[in-house]
Amino acid sequence: MHTDLVAALDIGGTKIAGALVDGDGRILARAQRATPAQQDGETVMRAVAEVLGDLAGSPLWGHARSVGIGSAGPVDASAGTVSPVNVPGWRDFPLVDRVRTITGGLPVELIGDGVAITAAEHWQGAARGHDNALCMVVSTGVGGGLVLGGRLHPGPTGNAGHIGHISVDLDGDPCPCGSRGCVERIASGPNIARRALEQGWLPGPDGDTSAAAVAVAARAGDPVAVASFERAAQALAAGIAATATLVEIDIAVIGGGVANAGDVLFTPLRKTLTDYATLSFVQRLTVVPAQTGTDAGLVGAAAAALTRLPDVQAASH
Amino acid sequence: MHTDLVAALDIGGTKIAGALVDGDGRILARAQRATPAQQDGETVMRAVAEVLGDLAGSPLWGHARSVGIGSAGPVDASAGTVSPVNVPGWRDFPLVDRVRTITGGLPVELIGDGVAITAAEHWQGAARGHDNALCMVVSTGVGGGLVLGGRLHPGPTGNAGHIGHISVDLDGDPCPCGSRGCVERIASGPNIARRALEQGWLPGPDGDTSAAAVAVAARAGDPVAVASFERAAQALAAGIAATATLVEIDIAVIGGGVANAGDVLFTPLRKTLTDYATLSFVQRLTVVPAQTGTDAGLVGAAAAALTRLPDVQAASH
Repeated sequence: MHTDLVAALDIGGTKIAGALVDGDGRILARAQRATPAQQDGETVMRAVAEVLGDLAGSPLWGHARSVGIGSAGPVDASAGTVSPVNVPGWRDFPLVDRVRTITGGLPVELIGDGVAITAAEHWQGAARGHDNALCMVVSTGVGGGLVLGGRLHPGPTGNAGHIGHISVDLDGDPCPCGSRGCVERIASGPNIARRALEQGWLPGPDGDTSAAAVAVAARAGDPVAVASFERAAQALAAGIAATATLVEIDIAVIGGGVANAGDVLFTPLRKTLTDYATLSFVQRLTVVPAQTGTDAGLVGAAAAALTRLPDVQAASH
Repeated sequence: MHTDLVAALDIGGTKIAGALVDGDGRILARAQRATPAQQDGETVMRAVAEVLGDLAGSPLWGHARSVGIGSAGPVDASAGTVSPVNVPGWRDFPLVDRVRTITGGLPVELIGDGVAITAAEHWQGAARGHDNALCMVVSTGVGGGLVLGGRLHPGPTGNAGHIGHISVDLDGDPCPCGSRGCVERIASGPNIARRALEQGWLPGPDGDTSAAAVAVAARAGDPVAVASFERAAQALAAGIAATATLVEIDIAVIGGGVANAGDVLFTPLRKTLTDYATLSFVQRLTVVPAQTGTDAGLVGAAAAALTRLPDVQAASH
């Protein structure tokens, strides 16, 4: 008996992934399409419908009792719409209604992708057992989500935890979001690479100018590469400390490609965090790497869907 | 019948106020002592006991069913202790236990003073009816508290909402808290006055160099005074936008002496807020003055105490 299966969708600018997930977070069936990100909205929706159609072909589909969607943002969970920055054909697109119709009226829970990854880390990863946590993804962008009082805190529109776009440098460089000095503007992978290049870092013979290449150089002791990661760490520390000071978290979990840099990022981050997290109630704050992998978006969407089932407790306890 | 009276204590560095408050937030009895802030901890506690003793002399005391304490911070609600910065005799002082003993075992709810003011504004003031709100006090310091999902969010230790000590200028001036570029370091009354004086503002013939005097000068068009309030407004805007981006609030309520400057503060604040609150889900954010007055601390402590009574709903709905 699979009394508590849910369907999960992870919608990004590159791919649309789907799965059937059980109450223990196991993925029992999968489907995937490339995101036709530059096409019109109905074409993108058709890819979603195909993913759901593949899942509906599974003999387990009849046990699916709700659908969880983690989508690139911004989303509006209160309206059931999504407007992913990298999918211009979807603006206030009524994804929840469309998915509900396709699935014959199943309850649908929509959250942002940062919130989904947080749900996954709280359910199965490094935030497990923590009632107050910030989970982040640091890669091309910087996203995140919050667990407060033992429960996921998506906020009214499903966007809470957007730490990448809080300003930690109010006179700083303009950010594409329109603000200045955002955490993402300083700490994302492309900005780590840009800053290293601007300061004179020279890429290796393979010409790789990614943040991963800067991390390799930093590990080898290149001072400009080290400094660029230290600056990213400083911005992350200020943002994490701000979050802890505002809502009292005791752990910050960081995943994503930039987090794969390991000690090059985490060592200066932990050191700098003590400079910004100064009040008594935030001094025990720890920072750890994420544990969930590439399925985090699906697992987190499933966790959100499970919270819609009255007799199941996942991601909130 | 007063079936749901509570006792409230508002503990600050200057005075210790107490009241009996009914379920509608009416103050039915009052008591007060000066805080012997520079004395030893037991002397300070004696003043609290005297306030409670005065309240116990009221014929209504028998109806008091719980005690709410709003205290200058930091507090530790999980441990029941307080360590007010301006009361050095109290460090991890077990205030909850002591008050419980004095009151014959009444349940005691402890929150920080910023959280207390938030509870008051949510119950009776400008945040009424808002499920997601930030309430702030901008005066000698900058404090605050949060309402999330319709409920007060004190956090595990009762300190959540400490917006005064989030850094909005990661390379900025050192703050007495140990961090840099905190909202308080830029926007508090003393810092507004300091900055105006440093930039060449000359006080009037009365020699008043307070932020209130700078506000008078700003209203009269003094450009240095205007600029100092604009800088404070910028820091407040960055901090409020960060809070909204992290937890999704739709209103920020500002009280305290600096807020009394009125348009001199609120006009640049509202203008600058649009520069920092850029994401779709924070663009409807409004900023308004607080409505509760000098009794806000008592009313908020009462609201917290009422939440301990199973059959009463105040400040959380």
